[in-house]
Amino acid sequence: MNITAFEYEDSIIVVDCGLAFPEDDMFGIDMVIPDVTYLENNLSKVRGFVITHGHEDHIGALPYVIQKINVPIYATRLTMGIIESKFEEKGLLSSTKRHVVNFGDTVTLGKFKVEFIKTNHSIVDAAALAIYSPVGTVIHTGDFKVDYTPVFGDAIDLQRFAEIGKAGVLALMCDSTNAERPGYTQSEKTVGVTIDRIFQEHQSTRIIIATFASNVDRVQQIINSAYKYGRKVVIEGRSMVQIIDIAQKLGCIKIPENTLMGIDELRSYPDNKTVIITTGSQGESMAALSRMAEDTHKKVKIKPGDTIIFSSHPIPGNEKSVTNVINKLLRKGADVIFQDVHVSGHPCQEELKLIYSLVQPKYAIPVHGEYRHLIAQSKIAAQLGVPKDNIFILQSGDVLELDKKSAKVTGKVPTGGVLVDGLGVGDVGNVVMRDRQHLAEDGIVVVAFAIDADHNLVSGPDITSRGFVYVKEADVMMNEATAVAEKAIFDCLDADVTDENKIRSMVRDGLSDFFWKKTKRSPMILPVILNT
Amino acid sequence: MNITAFEYEDSIIVVDCGLAFPEDDMFGIDMVIPDVTYLENNLSKVRGFVITHGHEDHIGALPYVIQKINVPIYATRLTMGIIESKFEEKGLLSSTKRHVVNFGDTVTLGKFKVEFIKTNHSIVDAAALAIYSPVGTVIHTGDFKVDYTPVFGDAIDLQRFAEIGKAGVLALMCDSTNAERPGYTQSEKTVGVTIDRIFQEHQSTRIIIATFASNVDRVQQIINSAYKYGRKVVIEGRSMVQIIDIAQKLGCIKIPENTLMGIDELRSYPDNKTVIITTGSQGESMAALSRMAEDTHKKVKIKPGDTIIFSSHPIPGNEKSVTNVINKLLRKGADVIFQDVHVSGHPCQEELKLIYSLVQPKYAIPVHGEYRHLIAQSKIAAQLGVPKDNIFILQSGDVLELDKKSAKVTGKVPTGGVLVDGLGVGDVGNVVMRDRQHLAEDGIVVVAFAIDADHNLVSGPDITSRGFVYVKEADVMMNEATAVAEKAIFDCLDADVTDENKIRSMVRDGLSDFFWKKTKRSPMILPVILNT
Repeated sequence: MNITAFEYEDSIIVVDCGLAFPEDDMFGIDMVIPDVTYLENNLSKVRGFVITHGHEDHIGALPYVIQKINVPIYATRLTMGIIESKFEEKGLLSSTKRHVVNFGDTVTLGKFKVEFIKTNHSIVDAAALAIYSPVGTVIHTGDFKVDYTPVFGDAIDLQRFAEIGKAGVLALMCDSTNAERPGYTQSEKTVGVTIDRIFQEHQSTRIIIATFASNVDRVQQIINSAYKYGRKVVIEGRSMVQIIDIAQKLGCIKIPENTLMGIDELRSYPDNKTVIITTGSQGESMAALSRMAEDTHKKVKIKPGDTIIFSSHPIPGNEKSVTNVINKLLRKGADVIFQDVHVSGHPCQEELKLIYSLVQPKYAIPVHGEYRHLIAQSKIAAQLGVPKDNIFILQSGDVLELDKKSAKVTGKVPTGGVLVDGLGVGDVGNVVMRDRQHLAEDGIVVVAFAIDADHNLVSGPDITSRGFVYVKEADVMMNEATAVAEKAIFDCLDADVTDENKIRSMVRDGLSDFFWKKTKRSPMILPVILNT
Repeated sequence: MNITAFEYEDSIIVVDCGLAFPEDDMFGIDMVIPDVTYLENNLSKVRGFVITHGHEDHIGALPYVIQKINVPIYATRLTMGIIESKFEEKGLLSSTKRHVVNFGDTVTLGKFKVEFIKTNHSIVDAAALAIYSPVGTVIHTGDFKVDYTPVFGDAIDLQRFAEIGKAGVLALMCDSTNAERPGYTQSEKTVGVTIDRIFQEHQSTRIIIATFASNVDRVQQIINSAYKYGRKVVIEGRSMVQIIDIAQKLGCIKIPENTLMGIDELRSYPDNKTVIITTGSQGESMAALSRMAEDTHKKVKIKPGDTIIFSSHPIPGNEKSVTNVINKLLRKGADVIFQDVHVSGHPCQEELKLIYSLVQPKYAIPVHGEYRHLIAQSKIAAQLGVPKDNIFILQSGDVLELDKKSAKVTGKVPTGGVLVDGLGVGDVGNVVMRDRQHLAEDGIVVVAFAIDADHNLVSGPDITSRGFVYVKEADVMMNEATAVAEKAIFDCLDADVTDENKIRSMVRDGLSDFFWKKTKRSPMILPVILNT
């Protein structure tokens, strides 16, 4: 959930506006977007969003946030193309301002000037930002890697990093994702070589290859090999179809004529003359490859002999889902290739050292990645001579004040995740989350009864449970539970307790104890009193 | 959840009896144990359990299963020590028969003879089994690795594998866990060298080191380094304390006098003269290290400068939990070391080739590991000359019939996981699991109302929700929902519908549509009708 505000006097600019995917314990949540209270409270100062690249964790919250903070958006071509397709879906195109920026361009936003610098990443058109302010220059790398031989466009503009560095850089905010990994990240082109070898070795079977929907260069290389070996290509999976469509319109991918075809045309060609490029490389349950593995995909049935390639590594947390999909594909007799058909889009330690050496910042502010990765980058910065006091590992919401000579964390602004569930933005909070966790663990027991105006029990208690025990096998226990509830109610009524909260609480405590003793479980107990 | 039955005429023996840890979608489940219906139905034939080693996935279900299948258990010393400590907790010691077996011993169980062969693994006293039957010999490796320089006891008895192989082996059932990894698994002793180097380099700080509770050799090596550098050792975490206690009584670990101390004695020594060996290397939320990271551990507070070592790799699925713990420890200013202080306990590809070459089985039956790993081993077996038709990848429940000359899957016995939740064994089934998933995703809406004998609505509908929306912010929607429910009820009553199932169903449908339109969510709707 990347979003960073820079403020100088009457000017605020915002770098990126991403979403986060829900954690495992965020039951039912679709996504998490940033709390932008601080920007709302300072709306008149906000001059624009400057976006580094088109990944969800950098742009995904824009369709929500732009409705509150409607300022111009600046981004490179493909990045803007992806933003615009999101805005189009939500009907936001006509109500927002958007500016496409070329690499090397500088935009002026109040007291700031922002230069977009070419980098490389696992999506085309990624940019680093040089943010010029009256007190100095901050370089924000965005997500990047150093690819000397990129598939599309230029290599990262190392000369420009050096030039700005030579002129003096106050602070460097640099991608930490791979900061624990020694060495260099390999060029995207090395994956092309591997893919080509696999195509060469598997000329008699159908090929299905899964990768990230937004990795246009990867899709380009797969298409190159498909073309070379005379195969027709189907692109499958909504997000991939969308992004490749945008990339094609913008000229970021070159697809030879008569190479792409619709999924229904698969049956018109022999298997070994087709390739399906698909989403689902992370084992996402609703993605196309997962549906093929589950036999619920309407158009593609996996067959013995299919060659299926995962051109990806599992993102931490997805290992089990990926293995589940691999197992299912293998059970169908497919040949599954999942090792070494991928490279990372982030810089390893030697690349970090290179950037630090070119930029030579006074202050280092590691960004992007888990806390452990920020720490790993801070160690590298220290090795390269950045004094320890000049390295800042910031928490979400921290305010770092910089002037020409000093830097200090001076405060905190409100931050946090706003949970999005269906149409609801922020209506699911801690209470609801805790209840969902409780319900998930042990289920619920509803105990309903009716009391009349004279405080007589006139109906119930009726006990119903969901997610607790299989009731048909727990008849006896449920009868006993009814007696327990009844006793608690009568105890209250006999003692002239008329406060319904008190009655509910007595019933809840009685049943809770009873079920714990019987089962060592703590279902949620929900007493419902009706008045007649 | 390893359990394998071998049957010949009137004799059945059972190799291992493990539990499985719940999958992510098994909400609230503590563990999964095997369905042993087949053994129950053939109880008179069952001669005994033969156990390969003391890990939970090989012995964890014994305390449950032994209550139904009470036959003698055969295991090596440490394995039996761990089984007995489980049985003691459940009061099963006096009602069960247990026999400790030495490596090289053969036990006779009906028509079978079973020889215990020394192997190496990440727990001491692991055994492979040679199972001799009238139609031939089956070797079951259990979990193993080839460690030429083990920390405790002998190296794997490769000569015996060769000797049995030379005499003729019908089938090999071999550990597949690492079958995708090229090369050899390193010796456990290499970890000792790393640990010693870390101790040497961190002589001025406290050391906290987390590893698997059952890895006695790892604990031995840590204690060796602690002793060498004059540190006192605390062992923390219930499961580790138990196993080290058993190992010490059995002489499987050698702890110099005055090296161990109680956790309360920590304060009597300077930090750099202490080591805490702890559980929690997988980020398990209730384990000791996680509680230290959370600041909820009663005896140990993490301090800046503490050196904390993860002597482990995250098991697939635990990556995020481990990272969460690492982040928390780093935030407290600790120095956290988590790379390359571990080796696997399973054989890589070259070790598999070695075992196949020594044993030279007629049939190969890869076991242990995900389906993808079984496939990986089957490719190795094929490379080494086992004909493809002689390689069997079995599903849980498959019956493979072998005679001297042939092998064939001839049927299926009932199998599956029995869910254990608190005291309940098997009372949580598919219906309850589905309900928990539904409740976790979208919560529940309870709509209660009372109808009198004349079919008048006399109270309600009252709507209560849990885990759905934060109600204070959804007042208006809930009032509308009440009206929707009321209308559905009146529609029924006006139309003289008296079937309560029908009324419930109408109310449920009405509310379900209403909430979907309003929120794009599908909470569970639970109508409760009271009769007055």
